[in-house]
Parts: sequence; structure tokens; C-alpha cells
Amino acid sequence: MDQLQDLITRIAPLDIALIELARARQAQLTKPPGSLGVLEDIAVRVVAISGQLLPAIWRKRVIVMAADHGVTVEGVSAYPSEVTPQMVLNFLHGGAAINVMARQAGAEVTVVDIGVAAELHHPALVTRKVAAGTANMVQGPAMTREQALEALMVGQQLVEEQVQQGLDLVATGEMGIGNTTAASAITASLLRVPVARVTGRGTGIDDQQLAHKVQIIERAIAYNAPDAADPLDVLCKVGGLEIAGLTGVILAAAALHIPIVIDGFISGAAALVAFALCPRVRDYLFAGHLSVESGHQLILDHMGLSPLLNLHMRLGEGTGAVLAMNIIDAAVRVHCQMATFDEAGVSNREDV
Amino acid sequence: MDQLQDLITRIAPLDIALIELARARQAQLTKPPGSLGVLEDIAVRVVAISGQLLPAIWRKRVIVMAADHGVTVEGVSAYPSEVTPQMVLNFLHGGAAINVMARQAGAEVTVVDIGVAAELHHPALVTRKVAAGTANMVQGPAMTREQALEALMVGQQLVEEQVQQGLDLVATGEMGIGNTTAASAITASLLRVPVARVTGRGTGIDDQQLAHKVQIIERAIAYNAPDAADPLDVLCKVGGLEIAGLTGVILAAAALHIPIVIDGFISGAAALVAFALCPRVRDYLFAGHLSVESGHQLILDHMGLSPLLNLHMRLGEGTGAVLAMNIIDAAVRVHCQMATFDEAGVSNREDV
Repeated sequence: MDQLQDLITRIAPLDIALIELARARQAQLTKPPGSLGVLEDIAVRVVAISGQLLPAIWRKRVIVMAADHGVTVEGVSAYPSEVTPQMVLNFLHGGAAINVMARQAGAEVTVVDIGVAAELHHPALVTRKVAAGTANMVQGPAMTREQALEALMVGQQLVEEQVQQGLDLVATGEMGIGNTTAASAITASLLRVPVARVTGRGTGIDDQQLAHKVQIIERAIAYNAPDAADPLDVLCKVGGLEIAGLTGVILAAAALHIPIVIDGFISGAAALVAFALCPRVRDYLFAGHLSVESGHQLILDHMGLSPLLNLHMRLGEGTGAVLAMNIIDAAVRVHCQMATFDEAGVSNREDV
Repeated sequence: MDQLQDLITRIAPLDIALIELARARQAQLTKPPGSLGVLEDIAVRVVAISGQLLPAIWRKRVIVMAADHGVTVEGVSAYPSEVTPQMVLNFLHGGAAINVMARQAGAEVTVVDIGVAAELHHPALVTRKVAAGTANMVQGPAMTREQALEALMVGQQLVEEQVQQGLDLVATGEMGIGNTTAASAITASLLRVPVARVTGRGTGIDDQQLAHKVQIIERAIAYNAPDAADPLDVLCKVGGLEIAGLTGVILAAAALHIPIVIDGFISGAAALVAFALCPRVRDYLFAGHLSVESGHQLILDHMGLSPLLNLHMRLGEGTGAVLAMNIIDAAVRVHCQMATFDEAGVSNREDV
């Protein structure tokens, strides 16, 4: 807990003077003021986050945390739990959507076993297993408080290692059959909204299965009574190991001045926990896309973030975040590489 | 006119059998069905357009058509006409937003002087000047019918040349002080809607200037009485040379089975003319983004297209289209490179 408090304390407010300098540069570039819309805001924020007037986004990485969920025995998912380790191997062999999209965006993929309920071995796998999946949250807490903290610290440590090797932009990704159930439980608890409002079809369940999933989450919340005023209590009782790990990734990246692109609903739940622990973390976050999962919009609204993409995606893995990396990259390049009116000899509107 | 009719005749309907084959492949990829949302639709459509089951988007190009507008003497823009040639030189020196964003997306930029009212010389400039700008549409037609047709054929010829050199994806871009005025006039005429509803602030005029711009467009339409049933009549009377050129680019690319990403409002007006001439062209179009210009949404709705991005951009040049190229590229790569359930040994939902 001391380590978590220490981490949070290191998340600094953005430098207002840098924001003003970045806005002044945007006004000199050969385009009508404001005509690049959100791209201008992105660039200004990356300047302020990175502390560099002319930042470069060379080293991009998506951290994909994988874990299993005890609650899957209740039949909340369209796929069996065995798909979690199968998909982890798919990531490691480069055949999943996240691999293809990361290659397209020029990003590296780090695959982390933080809690898969199977033995996995691969030279590229980062094994930091806190437990072999969570416990069934309908019958008790998904994790102990110690496990949640340990998973958080796994995320922190990974980011610290990556930053030492060089990191300009980090995306959050995940894999875990059953993890929309955990994300819905976290969202309903922290935002104090009805479960049905923040529960979606995940990988693709039907109406009857959706009604069952809502009931299971309601039972888990009733049984565990997570304390909305204590984000760590919510995280350990109805969360997941990969979600806790991503919360650690987000807090650590913010503390180290690395801009973060969050993916969809599961990543959003991790960001929501981070935001509840330290609202200032919001300034370091970009919402990569809006997921089809109904709870995601509420999370983004609560944090005051607008998604960069809205392409009706609901795959997770970090795919929406990695796709949005291209937009952030383009925004930063425009900021750094465009000619100013003076440099290009173009008449500005004041000349009219 | 015979040449235009011939071009239109060559635009074929999409191959339904290919669409079904592409959808079948999507269903085999290691992801829940439909979970990549719009990306799946993009990939399926690129398969059908290109006629290739596993297409590749290696060679991307944005064609930026530049021209001047006689109507600028009426004071419809925040910038003077001299900015058109200045910005063309900025494009040729690589300092404009479109250059930076094209480099980010791995796209080449073709800059075309199709009607700039200044002498421009640069080894990389494609000079196909149909006229030194349009005439003032308040006092008569902006172009003769012959000039509009000639500009269309410039676009067609450029695309045919590019396709011979290799082209997998083309984006439309433009530069021309005053060209939102022409785009609004075209949109109001073809969609038969009030001018005020499709007229925006362009590069950034104030309320009073906007009211004046609306009046000027209303006068131009009243004077010229463009015939909505004759798209070429609308194009020549209240259009622009770069808009006519882009209409030719769009029709020719569709005829040659090249997917087209259209940019914002000006490109949208060119697409609207192409659509009015040949509704089938719609199947070859991707709407790169939604512009802030109010008429753009109406154009996209009319053609039944959803924008891939909505980032409050209003720069033009092709910037929104080029930014969206990354999304199309990612969608196609996912389609071609992802592992299937069988290949990856991942349990599909039928196994549950």
C-alpha cells in the first residue's frame, strides 16, 4: 500500500507553461487556426505529458495482460476459459488481431501472463503470474487485497522496465475469458449505476445469457459489497488480475510522463480504478476508441475523455488503442514537422 | 461528353460472390464474429473492389488538386487568393499538413495545378492548368461546360497514369481559397436544400462574413440556375476546377477497381457530383472523416456513407482521407494476416 501511495504521489500535474508554448506553435503552422481539430489538442497534450516541446513517438508498445476469471464457471461467456491460454499462444505466434495491428502501427507487443489458469511457456512470454486465475466472485472476493496490489506492482514494474529501454507511447491491452463480467462489476460499483446499464454481450452472448450475466454480477456485488470509496476494495473483490495489472501500467506510465492510450471496456475499467485512486491520471490518458460495450461510454464520460475512434469494435486485446496510435503519431508529427507561415512564406489571415 | 459516358459505363457493380467469400474468411479469423466492427466491412469491401481475395495496400497516393476561384473577389474567405499558390509551393516543399500526414501513412502526394491563377514552376508539380482560376459565379457560370469536362478528364488521365505505375488506394485532396463556397453551391444545388444549411465558416470567417457568404452563394445560384438533374451543369456553373478534377479522379478510380478515400467537404462535393452521374460509384468510396463544415454530413448521408473518423477537422488538402488510410490499411492487413481458429488451434464458440 505504501508503494501504491508512493506511485500516486509521483503523478504530477501537467505543465501549463508548456501547454501555452505548444498552443503558440500550433497557431504558427500553415493552416487556419483550429483546423486540425482534435489533432491539435492531442499534440499539445503530448508536449505537456512528455515535457518536450517537439516530442517524437518512435517507441510504441502495447502491454497485453492475460488472466483467467473464476466467475466463468457461472456461464457468463460465449467462449470456454481454455480460450485464454490458446489466445495467449496466438499472440506469441503473431497471429492475433493485436499482432497484425501493432505491426501496422509500428508498435511492439508485450504479452504478460499475470494470471492465466494454465501453464504457459514461450520465450517471448513475460511470466508474472500472481495466481492461476481469480476466484469465483459470486462466492467471495475475486482476489485478496494483497493479490490486487501485487498485480498492480507487476504493471508498474513492467512499465519501469520498458521506460528504461525507451518508450514514447504505451497502449493497454488484455485477454481473459470472462473479463467483461469483471469490468462491468467494477464499473457498476465505482460509478454506482445499475449493473444492467453497464453490462454488454462481451464476445457475443444472446439475450437470455445477458440477463443471466447481469444476475451473476448483481449477486457478486451483493455478496462482496465492494466499497466505492475504496477503489482497491472494488478491484480486489470484483475485478481481475489483468485489470489490476493494467491499473498499475496506467499509474506508472503517468508517473513517468509517458502518454497512455487506453483500449475498450476492460482497459477502461482499469483506467477507472486508476482515476478513482488518482484523478490527475486523466491528463495522461487518450481514449483510443469507443467500444460497443455499453459501460464504456459511461467510463469515458466520467473521466471526461472523448474516444479518438468509433468503429463499433469490441475485440479488446488493445486493438482499438493500437489503431489510435496512428492518430496520435500523426498529430505529433504535424506539430513538429509542419512549416510555419514565416518558414513557408504563406500569407496569414492578418495580412488580408 | 462521350468520353465521360464511356468512363461511367466502365464502373462495374461489386462482385457479390467475392463479398461472400470475404465474409466467410472473416468468420474464420481468431476473434468473436463481428468484433472488429467497421474494420470487417472495410476489408470485405476492399476485397470486392480490388477483385483480390487477399488484397494488399502497398501503394497509397493522395491526389491534391489546386485551383483558384473567381468568386473570392466577393470576400467569401478569411484568406486572400494568393494563399492558393503559396500553399501549393508549401506542398511541393513538403511543409504542409498533408505532406507530414502522408509520410506518416506511407502515402505519396501528387500535387496538380489544374487552375491556379498564378504561374507555378516546380519539378514535382503536375501542371494541367485548364484555366487560371474560375470566373466569378455571381456574374455568370464559373466554367464553361467544356472546361468542366476537360478538368474531369485531367483527373481521369492522372489516375490512369498512376494505376499503370501501381496504385492500391487513392485519396482525394485539394487546395483553393474560396472552394468551400463552390462546394456549398454544388451541395445546395444537387441536394436541393437551402444554402444556409450547407454553408460553413471555411477557413474561419465570422458570423457577419458567413451571412455574406450565404448571400453570395444564393445570388450565384439564382443567376446561373444550375439544373439539379444535370450534374455537369451544376459542376460547371457553380463548381471549381479542382472539384471537377477530383470528380474525374473518383470516377476513373472506380472504373479501374481502386478503392477511394474521400476527404472532407470539398472532396465530398466532388464525390456528390460523381454519385449524381453514376450512383454505383458509391460502392468504391470510403469517407475518410466527417468535416466540421455543415454540408458534409448531408453529403455523406445522401450517399449512405459513414465517416471513419470524426476529429473536428476542417483543413482539407486530403488530410482526413490520408489519416483514414491507416484504418483501411489495418483492416485489410487483419483480413489477410490474422490466423484462423484452425491455424491457431483456438476453440471456436461452437466448441462450447
